[in-house]
Order: sequence, then structure tokens, then C-alpha cells
Amino acid sequence: MSISRCDLLLRADIIVTQDAQRRIVEGGAVAIDGGTIIEVGPQAELDARWQAERSLDLGRKLVMPGLVNAHTHASMTVFRGVADDLPLMTWLTENIWPVEKALSKEIIHFGALLACAEMIRTGTTCFCDMYLMEAETARAVDEAGIRAVLGEGIFAFPSPAYAKTEDAWPIIEDLHARYKGHGRIRTAIMPHAVYTTTPEILKRSWELAQAHGCIWKTHLSESETETRTSLEQFGRRPLDYLESLGISGSKCVFAHCVDLTPEEMVRMAETGAHVVHCPQSNMKLTSGMARIEDLRRAGVNVCLGTDGAASNNDLNMFLEMNSAALLQKVRTMDPTALNAQAALDMATVNGAKALGWEELGCLEAGKAADLIALDLNQPNMLPLYNPVSHLAYAASGMEVCLTMVNGKILYEHGRYAAMDMDGLAREAVKVARWVKARAHKTN
Amino acid sequence: MSISRCDLLLRADIIVTQDAQRRIVEGGAVAIDGGTIIEVGPQAELDARWQAERSLDLGRKLVMPGLVNAHTHASMTVFRGVADDLPLMTWLTENIWPVEKALSKEIIHFGALLACAEMIRTGTTCFCDMYLMEAETARAVDEAGIRAVLGEGIFAFPSPAYAKTEDAWPIIEDLHARYKGHGRIRTAIMPHAVYTTTPEILKRSWELAQAHGCIWKTHLSESETETRTSLEQFGRRPLDYLESLGISGSKCVFAHCVDLTPEEMVRMAETGAHVVHCPQSNMKLTSGMARIEDLRRAGVNVCLGTDGAASNNDLNMFLEMNSAALLQKVRTMDPTALNAQAALDMATVNGAKALGWEELGCLEAGKAADLIALDLNQPNMLPLYNPVSHLAYAASGMEVCLTMVNGKILYEHGRYAAMDMDGLAREAVKVARWVKARAHKTN
Repeated sequence: MSISRCDLLLRADIIVTQDAQRRIVEGGAVAIDGGTIIEVGPQAELDARWQAERSLDLGRKLVMPGLVNAHTHASMTVFRGVADDLPLMTWLTENIWPVEKALSKEIIHFGALLACAEMIRTGTTCFCDMYLMEAETARAVDEAGIRAVLGEGIFAFPSPAYAKTEDAWPIIEDLHARYKGHGRIRTAIMPHAVYTTTPEILKRSWELAQAHGCIWKTHLSESETETRTSLEQFGRRPLDYLESLGISGSKCVFAHCVDLTPEEMVRMAETGAHVVHCPQSNMKLTSGMARIEDLRRAGVNVCLGTDGAASNNDLNMFLEMNSAALLQKVRTMDPTALNAQAALDMATVNGAKALGWEELGCLEAGKAADLIALDLNQPNMLPLYNPVSHLAYAASGMEVCLTMVNGKILYEHGRYAAMDMDGLAREAVKVARWVKARAHKTN
Repeated sequence: MSISRCDLLLRADIIVTQDAQRRIVEGGAVAIDGGTIIEVGPQAELDARWQAERSLDLGRKLVMPGLVNAHTHASMTVFRGVADDLPLMTWLTENIWPVEKALSKEIIHFGALLACAEMIRTGTTCFCDMYLMEAETARAVDEAGIRAVLGEGIFAFPSPAYAKTEDAWPIIEDLHARYKGHGRIRTAIMPHAVYTTTPEILKRSWELAQAHGCIWKTHLSESETETRTSLEQFGRRPLDYLESLGISGSKCVFAHCVDLTPEEMVRMAETGAHVVHCPQSNMKLTSGMARIEDLRRAGVNVCLGTDGAASNNDLNMFLEMNSAALLQKVRTMDPTALNAQAALDMATVNGAKALGWEELGCLEAGKAADLIALDLNQPNMLPLYNPVSHLAYAASGMEVCLTMVNGKILYEHGRYAAMDMDGLAREAVKVARWVKARAHKTN
């Protein structure tokens, strides 16, 4: 047996691989070269096989794939806690929209950097983002070292990024061209929702997604109100309406999907559409309780997202796993519903599948070296029977003591490799002042 | 104006007092002498008035009352994650009860210490506990330096603490006598539930509570199944049954209360009973969604508890606040339901009121020096508009960087004053082995 060299050999007491067998390795190691995992297995075997430039003995830690936050609006961190506990329309029309209209590139960039810091801190290594002036989010992602799929929000009305929808297309093309071939950043096409666009916009956006071979994402069936609006405006329920425009298939990623019929679930499974469940946002904004168990049983790939920090108010995927599992249990009154493994799958492999980025969400040879380590000696992680149970039901996300993306350590024991948290904290004070001056009623 | 001496002057950017006016002091200070707060106010005023032996400048931190976890079973940390996602009866009869029967004093003591470590770490400074061999929990509380109200669980069948119920009474009397006058430990009378006791046991326990002037606590109306059982066994719903035995009033603390009629809510408000809401446990065990908004509107004092780590699986009151607010919003489909201030009240002042320990849950002169500090520079706490919003919706509990009980710092920046976390982690491995050998099906 020959010994080969690799960049890094990382050893830890427990490795939760999330591979096809959902293998958990005790006393495991991960061999990494460049940005790629080249082997995962027992320490003794990997020690014998690999000559590493650097080795990292994590000891009593749990190593697992970085989490995939499949739906967020990163820069909305600037609105965190500015207005809670309000009726939806008061919240949107008096507090979010007036400020969004005035958002500058600098504030978008700041909000995205802050979001990256929070996600890196709490174990998310890839996120899927839809917002305004997405080029600024891309710049933040590039600086922070995290991974993302980014899409400019497309609306039938002016956004801070464009005065009329016609001007949105070159912005989207430009973003796509700029990050083509970038290792960590991909772009996607993201019309906001059926009720904020037109049939022409949706069709053109779909053609663009087809042309670029990228994912097409929208908010879909978020609430009964949306369904009613769609029936009034288009004479069809949201999914029917999209299908009538020729939009369907495995490139479709639908956020929320609270108000679906059983028949729509079957159709989504047949066409291969992906659903992003956002339980905390759905609860806080009272969109409703998505029927995730039914979706899963129908065979739909369901993943997980935090939504933006204006409606959550954190970007912590560990807490989202917990909420997803608990909400589904009480909704169905079945304690076996959405078990710990299902929640973890939603936050890892299912997210990777939805984003069409199958190198993510799993630790095995050939996958991206996007991983996190959790401290198993935190009191809430003791004792340890089943690591997957702790990840879904006991972890708070703050047990994360190491976050790696593409083979690079971005966070380790309180220190960020590429982020100036003190600087962000100082900037946050100025941004809060700016937002407060523009929101109608703040908390 | 004369200058007086005090033990400690603690300064912080934000102080959330939870006093009657819900005052929030920016650039505030807390003067502490012995175990008592002697003044809370602006830094400049307190600096001019107090000559402190020691001062602590926390800077960009939020100081607030320590949280009150009004219902838990501390030692059940030893069951954390041993068996999840199971039907209730399989969980209880095959996994929890067989192991509980064999529990030793050492394991109870270990589990309680671990619970104290977790609660201290996540900002809880007082908890109300019902379990077996509660003297061991008392010993752990005393060592850990935390505050607690403790009660031996009373059953109509043998417990590891007593072979027959008759033997429970001297144990309870002994516990009460041992901690009479203890500054941080109080005892209470805690029959387990209507369906695990007899009328005679309940009456005797009530007389004992009256004699000692302490609170009387039980699990009540946790699920529809409990109501059905009560109707079958006693011909009455649980609350009616208790009242028929003469049990009611402001010394009554009822955990769960998921299945109440509107009329029962009014009666609870009239008699002054207190309700402990345990949303995460209710969701995970599918007990149901308690109608907390209705209870609050009826005028019932509702506080918050984590329940035990076997059904949660953490003892983190920040996450419990979040779950309480989000669950109540989606249950009522009203985004204004159970707002951030209401959640914080439940976790502080309302808990103190329920436990009849009114020196707790609030920072003002004359109250106990039980407080915590949160790091406002953690990314999920930025920017800051409304501190109360962040406590209910953005905090994970891990932002807690200082925990003080009775004027003594128990935890500061990763270090416990009186707990050996490495030792607990080593012991946890042995305890897990012991539990696994006795549980039927473990994860």
C-alpha cells in the first residue's frame, strides 16, 4: 500500500458523514486536498494511507457536513428586530418596503457580510439567496469565503437595483457572467413570486434559466392569501399558473409551499420540483404550518431555509432543524413524524440536491471540503447516545467551533479568518440609525 | 449626597430591568451588596453614589435578570437523546421507566449537576424541579451555586426513592427540614399527576403544602388522553377533580395545561393558579398546542419551563421563549400574539410569581442579585433596535457570557466557578453506558 500526500488530515471522535448509508464513524478522519475531500474513514486507516502537510486533531468533537440554508435574504439582517409582532401588511408596507426602497449598495453589502458571519458561526457553509442588488451580496460572499447560490429578485415594479423590470435582465446577465466558473459562487434566476410578477416576466425568466442551465427559484404558495390572489389575478392556483406558462421540472425550487393540495404535492414529486421549508418564518409571519410529512411521503425533495432575519430573526440552521421537527410532530400529532435523521437530511443532502450542487451536504471522497465541527463537551451535548438526535434536538448552533469551506477554515474557536467582527459591530450601529430614520414604526 | 460602599458595581451598555415599568437603561449600572441588588440606574448616577469594592465594566453587553425555568426534571439530562421520535407509550414504558426504576443516587446527582451546568451556561438562574431522590438534586444545586425550588415526585406506586407511598412523606419532610432557611434552595410539594396518584395522596400532599406554606405543583391537563383518563377514573376533568379535593388557589402551580376548557381558564384566573407552559416538550411529545393567548387573556399568570431533557432535548430557556412566541402565533394565526415582551415576562417575572419567590425575575433595589450578561457583538445580535426582540427572537442562549446567582459569578466567558465540566464530560460517558444497558430500544 502506497502513502500519498494530502493537504490536511482532520481527526475527530465522531464523524457524521451523511453519505448514502448515513455512516457515522467513531474515531474518524477526513483527508482533504485543495478544496476537496479525498477520503473519510477510521483514523488508523487514513493515518496509514495519507501523508498530510498539516493535521488537525479535534479530539472530542463531532465533524459533519456544513449546513445548506436553501432560502434566505441575507442582507435583511439589517432589519433584524426592527419591527416584530405586527400584522403582515403593516410590517411590509410601513416598515420593510419603505426602507428597502432606499437601500444602498453599502448597506446591502454590510447586511450580507453580517449574514455570512452569523451563518459561518452557526455551521452553515452554503446558502441560497434572493434579494436586491445581489452583486453586493456576491461581493460579501467572496470576501467571507462562504459558498452561495445567488439571484437578483425580479419584480414587475421598480427595485433599488432597477427603475423598470426591463433593466433587470442585463443586471442578471452581468451577475451570471461575472461569477461563471467561480468555485464558490453560482447564480440562479429568481422571480420573487407569482403575485409580484407578470406572465411575461415569468416566461422570460424561465427561458433565461434554461439558457444558463441554472436553477429557477420563487416564493410559492406561502399562504392561503397568496392562493386567493393567484386565483383572482390568473384564474389558477400558483402551481397551476406556473405550469400553464411552461415552468416545471427539477430546476424549480419553491420556497415555503404552505398552502398546497395533495394533488399538487404529487405533481411536484412527478416533475422533480424542490421545496424549501422555512418553519420559523412561517410561524412568525403566521403563513401557516406546511404539510411537510405529506410532501415527503409524496416523494418531494424537501430542504430547509431560515428565510430572512426580518422574519425569523436568526439565520441559524440548527434551530431551524429543531423547529421543523417539532412543528411537524405537533401538526400531525404523531411523535414519529419528521425524525432527527429527516431533519438533518433536509439541512444537508436535500439542500444540496435542490441547489443542484451535489458536491455539498455530505462528507465522502470527491465532495467539497465544506465541513463543521461541534464541541461535544458543551453541557447540552452530554451524554451522547445518538449524534443525529443531538444535532436536531439539543444543539443550538453555538457548539460549532470550526467552520471550513472549500478546504479553508473560516471560523475557529471565536475567531474569523476573513471577517472583522468588531468592524461589523461598529458599522451596525450606523446602519441601525439609518434604518430607524426610515421605518414608520420601529420597536 | 453621601457616598456609600457596596460589594460590586457592574456597568453595561444595556440593562433590561423587567421592573414594573419594563425600564431599559442604556449605559446602565447595577450596584450589588451581598446577594442583593441595591440600585439599578444610569452609570453616572451610580458612580457618584456608590463606592464599590470591585467594579466590572462589561461594555457592549446586555444585562438582564436570570431566567426562571419553572418546570423541569433536571436529572433527566441522563436520558438526553436516548430515545426520540417514538410513540409516547413506547418511549415511556420501554425506555424511560425501566431505567428510572434502577436509577441510583449517584446518577441523579450527576444528571442534576449536568443540568445546572447547562442552565447556568444558557442564562437560567432559578429552576423548579420535580423528580426522584430530590435530595441528590438539592446537593447538586448547592454545589453548583444556582437557585431552585425542589420537590420529590409523589406517586401511588414505588419510586427509586421509596418502596411505598407511605415512605415518601418522611423523605419530603426531611428534605424540607434540611433546607429550611437556605438562601438558594426552597422545597415544595409535588404529586406527579392526577392519574399517577390517589385522592388520599393528593389530599395529604395538599395538607402538607398548607402546613409548610409552600407551593403545590403537579402536571395538569397535559393532553386529551389525561382528561379522558381522569373522566374515566374520577368522573371529573383534572381541574374539577383537584377542586373536589379542596385543592385550589395561588399556591397551585400547574405544568402543561394543554387541554383546558375556556371555563377552566376563567376558574384558574379567579383562584390565582399559575400555569407553566412547556412548548417544546408539548410539540415533541405531541401533547398538543396549549392555548396560552386565551389563558393570558383570561388573566392567568403563565410562566415558562423546558420540561426534562428527555422530551426537549435541552434546558435552554432562550429557545423556549422563541418557541412559545412562534407556536402561539401560528396556532392563533395572529402575528401579534404572544409578543417578545410577553415571552420575556413569562421567562422572568411570571416565573418568579408562580414560585412565590418575588425577589427573582427582575433587576431593582431589594431583589436578589441573580443576573446574566449577553454579548451584543455576536453576529445574531446585530444590529440592535429593540433588546427585548433579540432576547425572544434572535438569541440562542449561547450569547450568555456571565451568569450570577445571589451576587456570585457562576459562569464567565467559558469558565465555571464551581463546576468541573471536564469531569462531568468523562462521567457522562460512563452514565451513557449504564443507561444504554437498561433501555430497551435506544437510538
